[in-house]
Amino acid sequence: MDRPHVLILGAGIAGLGAAEKLKNSAVDVTLIDKHNYHTFQPLLYQVATNLLNADIVGSPIRDAIHEQDNLTFHQTAVTHIDLNNRSVAFEDIEPLSYDYLVLALGAKVNFFGVKGAAEHAFPLYTLADSTRLKNQILARFEMTEKDPSQIEEGALNFVIVGGGPTGVEISGALAIFVYHDLVKDYPGLDVEKTRIILVDSGPALLQMFKEKSQVYTKSKLEELGVDILLGQRVAEVSPSLITLQSGETIKAQTLVWAGGLQANPLVKELGLELAPGNRVPVGPDLALSDHPEVFVAGDIGMISDGKTAETLPQLGSVAIQTGHHAGESIAHQVDGKTIGPFKYLDKGTMATIGAGAAVMQMPGGRTLTGKAAFLSWGAVHLALLGGGGHRASALVKYGFALFSGKRSSRIVLDEEAD
Amino acid sequence: MDRPHVLILGAGIAGLGAAEKLKNSAVDVTLIDKHNYHTFQPLLYQVATNLLNADIVGSPIRDAIHEQDNLTFHQTAVTHIDLNNRSVAFEDIEPLSYDYLVLALGAKVNFFGVKGAAEHAFPLYTLADSTRLKNQILARFEMTEKDPSQIEEGALNFVIVGGGPTGVEISGALAIFVYHDLVKDYPGLDVEKTRIILVDSGPALLQMFKEKSQVYTKSKLEELGVDILLGQRVAEVSPSLITLQSGETIKAQTLVWAGGLQANPLVKELGLELAPGNRVPVGPDLALSDHPEVFVAGDIGMISDGKTAETLPQLGSVAIQTGHHAGESIAHQVDGKTIGPFKYLDKGTMATIGAGAAVMQMPGGRTLTGKAAFLSWGAVHLALLGGGGHRASALVKYGFALFSGKRSSRIVLDEEAD
Repeated sequence: MDRPHVLILGAGIAGLGAAEKLKNSAVDVTLIDKHNYHTFQPLLYQVATNLLNADIVGSPIRDAIHEQDNLTFHQTAVTHIDLNNRSVAFEDIEPLSYDYLVLALGAKVNFFGVKGAAEHAFPLYTLADSTRLKNQILARFEMTEKDPSQIEEGALNFVIVGGGPTGVEISGALAIFVYHDLVKDYPGLDVEKTRIILVDSGPALLQMFKEKSQVYTKSKLEELGVDILLGQRVAEVSPSLITLQSGETIKAQTLVWAGGLQANPLVKELGLELAPGNRVPVGPDLALSDHPEVFVAGDIGMISDGKTAETLPQLGSVAIQTGHHAGESIAHQVDGKTIGPFKYLDKGTMATIGAGAAVMQMPGGRTLTGKAAFLSWGAVHLALLGGGGHRASALVKYGFALFSGKRSSRIVLDEEAD
Repeated sequence: MDRPHVLILGAGIAGLGAAEKLKNSAVDVTLIDKHNYHTFQPLLYQVATNLLNADIVGSPIRDAIHEQDNLTFHQTAVTHIDLNNRSVAFEDIEPLSYDYLVLALGAKVNFFGVKGAAEHAFPLYTLADSTRLKNQILARFEMTEKDPSQIEEGALNFVIVGGGPTGVEISGALAIFVYHDLVKDYPGLDVEKTRIILVDSGPALLQMFKEKSQVYTKSKLEELGVDILLGQRVAEVSPSLITLQSGETIKAQTLVWAGGLQANPLVKELGLELAPGNRVPVGPDLALSDHPEVFVAGDIGMISDGKTAETLPQLGSVAIQTGHHAGESIAHQVDGKTIGPFKYLDKGTMATIGAGAAVMQMPGGRTLTGKAAFLSWGAVHLALLGGGGHRASALVKYGFALFSGKRSSRIVLDEEAD
């Protein structure tokens, strides 16, 4: 009965990855998440643009316990983490003490203080975010169909902030959704008047990619009908007007925020010195320097690649590898062994643009663009999606949408009674 | 430009059925619904018990316009119907006049004045209802897993009111969901303590079926673990206690209301004499006697089968046939022709119990029970589900769940930001 207790906070890609590696260990694992579902965040933009259903991108966390006898799951929110007493308090269960802690609580959107953004922008980090954005998009079209004068009020203008992978992917997918699918749904509406505007403060899209990919991405997005504003920042967001720092204004009722993340605010109470975006700095083994029993994985951490001391981006591929490393480290320590420091294995970074176009930054600096990158992207993401049922179902829908251009879930379901 | 204008209120099974039959007519059709999706109500209980996803049972209404050039759709709510001036007013578009009107606005749940039911019961008539019930069921289990004393408070007691097809289907599906699926999700919880109690005021379940089917249904449901209380009525509902008219009380936090319908309240302003449940009485041609240009179809109508003068039940099979008849009548009138009165073609009435069990009341009084009825049921409902994409996807999920016993969408997605 004195098996070490491993407490994993967060059942995202990192937290589930850590749990998985403890499957055959002589430990008791408790997994905590405030939702009963795991969110596969890399595909949220597909939920927002109606290509995948929310319940494919969100899968039941309890599926994991079917395959892991030493795992208990509680759906609850963390309220306080006491590193010195090795204890965590929760919203509606008794506090739990731990021998090992995995901090995998993820992040939330960082609006960087842009006025009105918290109230009026549409972020894209949670499953609820993606559904809300989809409903917002469809509601703009239903409204405009009834009152075309709303076009002049910017109802069909969509501004996306942030030219990283999320911003590129949502822009491309939205362009295809609108110009390819919705145009058929609203024959009486001048759907071609829709404007999709991608804004980034830097000199290029996808700044982590090579120039060739950046140029390709920009030209492909423009082909799809996306306007790209580089070197521009959004200064203020209101329900119907976007103001840029240049003073220029854009009438738009929908601003999608893909502009960056900040770590889960709970980290502020840890008594640690935090990195920019509140990320938690970790040692080479992913543990806290003063608390070797506490491991950090995924978006919440400030994690180096283990080679060049460069900070790794907040991406799914980093989450899964850091989660695995944290789990393996604990498994080894319990067995009285050690493993080396975390080393990120670069399998390539991808962004899909849509309609057969994608870019892939290969390890070693090679760049892949076009259909080959697109297919790699599809394969990688489908392989990452959890559960046999999900994978099969996602494959069916994915293939169906790709090959027929038909999408099946553009319904606006409100939870209110009617 | 003087093509007759057909206004169809409601895009349920009846409304879409009417629209379809006007596809090749020289008319302009306007279809109105307050949602942007069509709800296939016969399968709502499957959404609530996690067997099908909400976006399979709800399909985009705009799909219909792809196949019908003379059809316009507006998502808006009807606020007033003026039969004398042949005009209908809406929430957010200008009033529309019509040459022909199809009243297919459906019904809503009838709580028959049971105290507390409107506030605390879970009806099962809309897509939002089904999602809300699913979330309620799953939340009871998550809560009890954290605090097993909630079992004593009735958290795992589920009371279903109404022994018609809906009540039978949700009871059976819930029993399988709980005892077969959820039991694996909550290994630390005594899921066997779950009680599913089906209450009906009559002497038997499925009163429209033959006695053989009634007996079979009762015994199959009991095999699945459902307790059946016949000859009992619910008198009062509170968030944690159900009081029967006998004075007996049942601790339960979830009461599913499958106890009957009343027509859309808008009919009260029509100036017509209404039948019980506010249903609109119609002539043999489904038109209003004083307004031959107004046709009534689906759950909103008090419709005779055309042979025995017996009133038809509020079922999908009646909705589709009355919708088709209304559409065909208008198409014929526009062409200067007439068609005969509405005759209901009895193709059999079915109720599925689950786990390979179902009953089917065949035309002419024959009864089919067991696996054959179950498979017929599946085939009929899948054939009725709209759209190629949906059908394929539903088939995949349906087959997958049947053969593997695994369900894929038991996630609780709230729309609030997090």
